[in-house]
Amino acid sequence: MTQTVPAYAAPAPGAPLERTTIERRTPGPHDVLIDIAYAGICHSDIHQARDGWAEGIFPMVPGHEIAGTVAAVGEAVTRFSVGDRVGVGCMVDSCRTCEFCLAGQEQNCANGSTGTYNAIGRDGEPTYGGYATHVVVDENFTVRIPDSLPLDVAAPLLCAGITVYSPLRHWQAGPGKKVAVVGLGGLGHMGVKIAHALGAEVTVLSQSLRKREDGLKLGADHYHATADGTVFDELAGTFDLIVSTVSAPLKLGGYLKLLRPDGALVNVGAPEEPVSLNLFSLIGGRKTLAGSNIGGIPETQEMLDFCAEHGLGAEIEVIRADQINEAYERVVNSDVRYRFVIDTATI
Amino acid sequence: MTQTVPAYAAPAPGAPLERTTIERRTPGPHDVLIDIAYAGICHSDIHQARDGWAEGIFPMVPGHEIAGTVAAVGEAVTRFSVGDRVGVGCMVDSCRTCEFCLAGQEQNCANGSTGTYNAIGRDGEPTYGGYATHVVVDENFTVRIPDSLPLDVAAPLLCAGITVYSPLRHWQAGPGKKVAVVGLGGLGHMGVKIAHALGAEVTVLSQSLRKREDGLKLGADHYHATADGTVFDELAGTFDLIVSTVSAPLKLGGYLKLLRPDGALVNVGAPEEPVSLNLFSLIGGRKTLAGSNIGGIPETQEMLDFCAEHGLGAEIEVIRADQINEAYERVVNSDVRYRFVIDTATI
Repeated sequence: MTQTVPAYAAPAPGAPLERTTIERRTPGPHDVLIDIAYAGICHSDIHQARDGWAEGIFPMVPGHEIAGTVAAVGEAVTRFSVGDRVGVGCMVDSCRTCEFCLAGQEQNCANGSTGTYNAIGRDGEPTYGGYATHVVVDENFTVRIPDSLPLDVAAPLLCAGITVYSPLRHWQAGPGKKVAVVGLGGLGHMGVKIAHALGAEVTVLSQSLRKREDGLKLGADHYHATADGTVFDELAGTFDLIVSTVSAPLKLGGYLKLLRPDGALVNVGAPEEPVSLNLFSLIGGRKTLAGSNIGGIPETQEMLDFCAEHGLGAEIEVIRADQINEAYERVVNSDVRYRFVIDTATI
Repeated sequence: MTQTVPAYAAPAPGAPLERTTIERRTPGPHDVLIDIAYAGICHSDIHQARDGWAEGIFPMVPGHEIAGTVAAVGEAVTRFSVGDRVGVGCMVDSCRTCEFCLAGQEQNCANGSTGTYNAIGRDGEPTYGGYATHVVVDENFTVRIPDSLPLDVAAPLLCAGITVYSPLRHWQAGPGKKVAVVGLGGLGHMGVKIAHALGAEVTVLSQSLRKREDGLKLGADHYHATADGTVFDELAGTFDLIVSTVSAPLKLGGYLKLLRPDGALVNVGAPEEPVSLNLFSLIGGRKTLAGSNIGGIPETQEMLDFCAEHGLGAEIEVIRADQINEAYERVVNSDVRYRFVIDTATI
């Protein structure tokens, strides 16, 4: 038994997205049926729809920044009721039995978590994402959006928010810590907001000063352009933590020089091509180069609660579904402040 | 006022070391005069004497693995008395006022610590290392060698020992943790001993199985050859911590794949050339690539006390001073099990 719902899909790698219909499973005992209100456009949607990362499953319905309302619940669902405001992020399933799942780190599932789209679910069927009017998700992969967070500005938190929240918490951004955020895009602007709310002294390192005014408004204490390179001498030894949100190849040596001893440069964005690294730039001062990949379901809920408490939502531009392809072009050209969110009522 | 002491020095970059004399300062109020008994040969001695790393100061007396006995103390010295068994490692001074020095991390001194040799001291004079009969060192950069540790096997602990002890402690090697040591040389063999004594399950990853028997005797639970590459699939996702002691360029992607989520690959050896890294290999599983550089003076003392408590000394081959050049060749050819120690009575 399935139900047919409208969606926007890329029929083939690189093809423009177009309106179509997809089948959603009838909610099982542990499922919730979500009436999607908004779906954010993540840069990785574009990578995957255009097949830049790996072989994709087409037709592809992107979207892993989903905010909506529970429309129905399976008979065994205990955590949600019809009408609840909920979100879904990058995962819709995992094995739930490995040590990582049991520790609430489903993103590290030893048997592989199931992506919200462009994946094969445990039922053998492809998963389809949030560019649709409805989605059916297990309640254990559904999180609650606090009442004080509007659904449209909450949607991007499900990927962009958790992607920066998790490393900021893990590497202890907070009072007395100097944190730099590299790149002021969808991820970066949430990084600035969250790092500021955590109490850290926040610096934006961006190619130019074009978004300086925005950055300071979002909560940055300092804003520097990296294009001329002088900043790498000027700020040497400054930061406890640098979170890089960009997918352009960074000159790692320069950024590592900006760290204090025991500091960490954490990549949540990454170029597809390998980068060059002199390991000596890590040895002096016991520096860390790390990566971070979203967060587990409990931490995603913690992030939403934190954002609600501090009144943090994404800066968004709401679009109609028929503007998705145009929005993709604008994302690729860094012409968005700071996240496109699809009003799924327009699908 | 100085005193003339015999030493072995490289007169010029790459030239063989030869017997000479050097001037040591008369001990100041806070100095101890050390009658050197043994000096270890560290691979970095060779790098520096041959000028591979940076412009060196010549003539150069290498040696930063020094063990001996206090022969005289300055009038203000409180920590040592004549006859005490002491060691000196890679540093003989630092600013002592910056936050790092105050925290006992003199190796990260914001104003630059002073190397035991191949450096310019705060008095403007070049420093000369341990390939000599005597050295004068501030008591704050002198550590105590516990009575149960023979001086010859203690000498290499001052660099090789602390270089692996510090990251093993920082990244919490211990019971329940799986630790790999890459390379079984001067650093690696101490890494195996210390990681084992800390209670970790220890694996050696070496190019071949040539030293397998030694590795197991030193305390390794497992021993794998990396040359054929199958180990990188076989042991994927295994280790909490990998400490790489080699200076050959590692294929980082393969080693990072061996880490569990939240695992760390820490380099204490490093190639002079940059290596290639795909940042995606850090993002999945929030992995860390880090470096580590010796340790502070308090941690060096802690390491010596730990080694004494667990009966850990280096595996050494004691040589005469006139064998130094031959020993250098053997180190370069990995033909030493596992550290050469110069009997300085032969200088």
